[in-house]
Amino acid sequence: MKKIRVDLGKIQYDIVIGTDLLNQIDTFIKGFDFEPKCGIITDTNVNALYGTTLKKILESSGFECIIFQVPAGESTKSLETATGLIDQLMENKFNRHTPVIALGGGLINDLAGFVSAVYMRGLPLIQVPTTLMAQVDSSIGGKVGVNYNNNKNMLGTFYQPKLIISDLNVLKSLPKQELSSGFAEVVKYGMILDKSFFEYLETNHKLLTDQDEGFLEYIVSTSSEFKARVIERDVRDETGIRAVLNYGHTIGHALESVSDYKGYLHGEAVAVGMAYAAKISSRLELMEQADVQRQNQLLHSNGLNLNIGDIDPAGLIKAMDFDKKQREAGVVRFILTEGIGKAKLMDGISLELIHEVLGGTIEL
Amino acid sequence: MKKIRVDLGKIQYDIVIGTDLLNQIDTFIKGFDFEPKCGIITDTNVNALYGTTLKKILESSGFECIIFQVPAGESTKSLETATGLIDQLMENKFNRHTPVIALGGGLINDLAGFVSAVYMRGLPLIQVPTTLMAQVDSSIGGKVGVNYNNNKNMLGTFYQPKLIISDLNVLKSLPKQELSSGFAEVVKYGMILDKSFFEYLETNHKLLTDQDEGFLEYIVSTSSEFKARVIERDVRDETGIRAVLNYGHTIGHALESVSDYKGYLHGEAVAVGMAYAAKISSRLELMEQADVQRQNQLLHSNGLNLNIGDIDPAGLIKAMDFDKKQREAGVVRFILTEGIGKAKLMDGISLELIHEVLGGTIEL
Repeated sequence: MKKIRVDLGKIQYDIVIGTDLLNQIDTFIKGFDFEPKCGIITDTNVNALYGTTLKKILESSGFECIIFQVPAGESTKSLETATGLIDQLMENKFNRHTPVIALGGGLINDLAGFVSAVYMRGLPLIQVPTTLMAQVDSSIGGKVGVNYNNNKNMLGTFYQPKLIISDLNVLKSLPKQELSSGFAEVVKYGMILDKSFFEYLETNHKLLTDQDEGFLEYIVSTSSEFKARVIERDVRDETGIRAVLNYGHTIGHALESVSDYKGYLHGEAVAVGMAYAAKISSRLELMEQADVQRQNQLLHSNGLNLNIGDIDPAGLIKAMDFDKKQREAGVVRFILTEGIGKAKLMDGISLELIHEVLGGTIEL
Repeated sequence: MKKIRVDLGKIQYDIVIGTDLLNQIDTFIKGFDFEPKCGIITDTNVNALYGTTLKKILESSGFECIIFQVPAGESTKSLETATGLIDQLMENKFNRHTPVIALGGGLINDLAGFVSAVYMRGLPLIQVPTTLMAQVDSSIGGKVGVNYNNNKNMLGTFYQPKLIISDLNVLKSLPKQELSSGFAEVVKYGMILDKSFFEYLETNHKLLTDQDEGFLEYIVSTSSEFKARVIERDVRDETGIRAVLNYGHTIGHALESVSDYKGYLHGEAVAVGMAYAAKISSRLELMEQADVQRQNQLLHSNGLNLNIGDIDPAGLIKAMDFDKKQREAGVVRFILTEGIGKAKLMDGISLELIHEVLGGTIEL
């Protein structure tokens, strides 16, 4: 088992990573001064796999435990679902000492996190991410929220959990496509922060399909550590430090948006975004073509498609989140890489260049 | 002009206190890297007094400025009003760099603060408290929220402003009763934290009715400083340090609750709570009767009634916010004072004693 301490000054918590942690969840929770009662917020899919088991373990160690189940799928991430959960917490007399366990992928992390953040100004939150994506990225950093009026993550806040438990066993139930999606974010950390980690992934990535425990523990703990160190320096995403985590995301988010959050898993869209961002880096002579190829090969050989296909570049650019004034001036801020392992927040990237690059294809 | 720095580690901001600050609001706001656009969230009463003036000042210095007006009154502090405001912010394309000015008393501070906290995970917030209560207490500390399903402040979070502007001029438009209500919190700081400040109030309190600028600046800045120093040590109200600020509030909140938030201004209820809390302190021989008298005299001579009248003590105790287990055991935690200037969080106070004291009257 690995333990990573996240130190945000006045708030500190651990990420624990290892195999078979869900079966020991009671021992983790007993370390806090909680009421002997808890709620599990989860979706129908995850509940069928782990909900009852978790509830039994908690009950056998003296916790009253209530499962609050929501439908799986993006439409669940709404203010209506959130207030529905809040109503149920109120009916069950939850108070500021009753913990909520968010059991699921990114959607559940965001939704249950938001509910925990605003209920009586904050319930103790335990994140139990059940996808590789959530373990290496979305459960860490405190971003919680729901969609509103067709705007993704429109309502939200920053709220830190008391603990994150990343059990590697649960990754075994994931479809291959979900693993690949999470792996895109893992590769991203290598590209933006650490060349030697990237090279480790190049050498060992076949162990992902084998679900090799040592490999999984290493990539989840290293990724968690990377993300923790970045957010520690920019908790509320204000200084630009945290922006490097969005490598591949400017295009990726736009792809998800124009395809109405249906065509791509998040990491699949990010992989495409990384491929095109690398092409821009190469065109600006920030990165050698050989390094671009290495990134793309690593993504592609893990089942990630890198071409945007027949999506219109102009529509995609319109969906990108740029500063209004910069967009009007035709030159925007973009997250690029100067070779493998080094992200750079670049100003003055022309929309024309982005448009041109998006019009081309990614060669492997 | 006085300036008090609030240092919460990664987040820091100023409270500025002085006369005629509203007329200089543009200079304060220009110090930040905001878009030249802002929203003013205010209620009908305050808008009639200061809304248009503020808008004109901001517009004449190049800000686009939109007033979002809500009805005055407790029923406005709802999730429906909050989402209504959010809808308007979205229509007007507010983003994370567009500031919101909360212009009003505690209700507007809470409501506009909540909207700012959750809109895109946080808009820059400028608090402009317009009551003595809001200037010395409710605008400071980051507690924001709305009522929900008949539960006071049920949904909320902790969200810190970029700046608090306490203009003493606006206090001139307050009814006497509002000033007295705010003054109860000022006396509270003396009782829990600083005997010499209490004695200053005893000597000079008549200057309150005269609206003496020096006196107002001193009590607002000293109170702000007291509150800032307490919240710095307990930002999320978790360690018990912040609990001392609730002196007089256990009974006060219960009084407000049983009277359906209609019979008392907040400070009026707190004053009653302080009188009965002091009586408990005296019964436990923590405080001399002479000090109890001094507190009560100071409150009473500023127009604050200290008796609960014909309210049933049992019902009042039922409405108090005690730990469930402690309540069942009949002995609870209560904030008392050991003489003037020294609060003490006491465990083991019997409900029987509280009941008995509440059954009696406060003699002056």
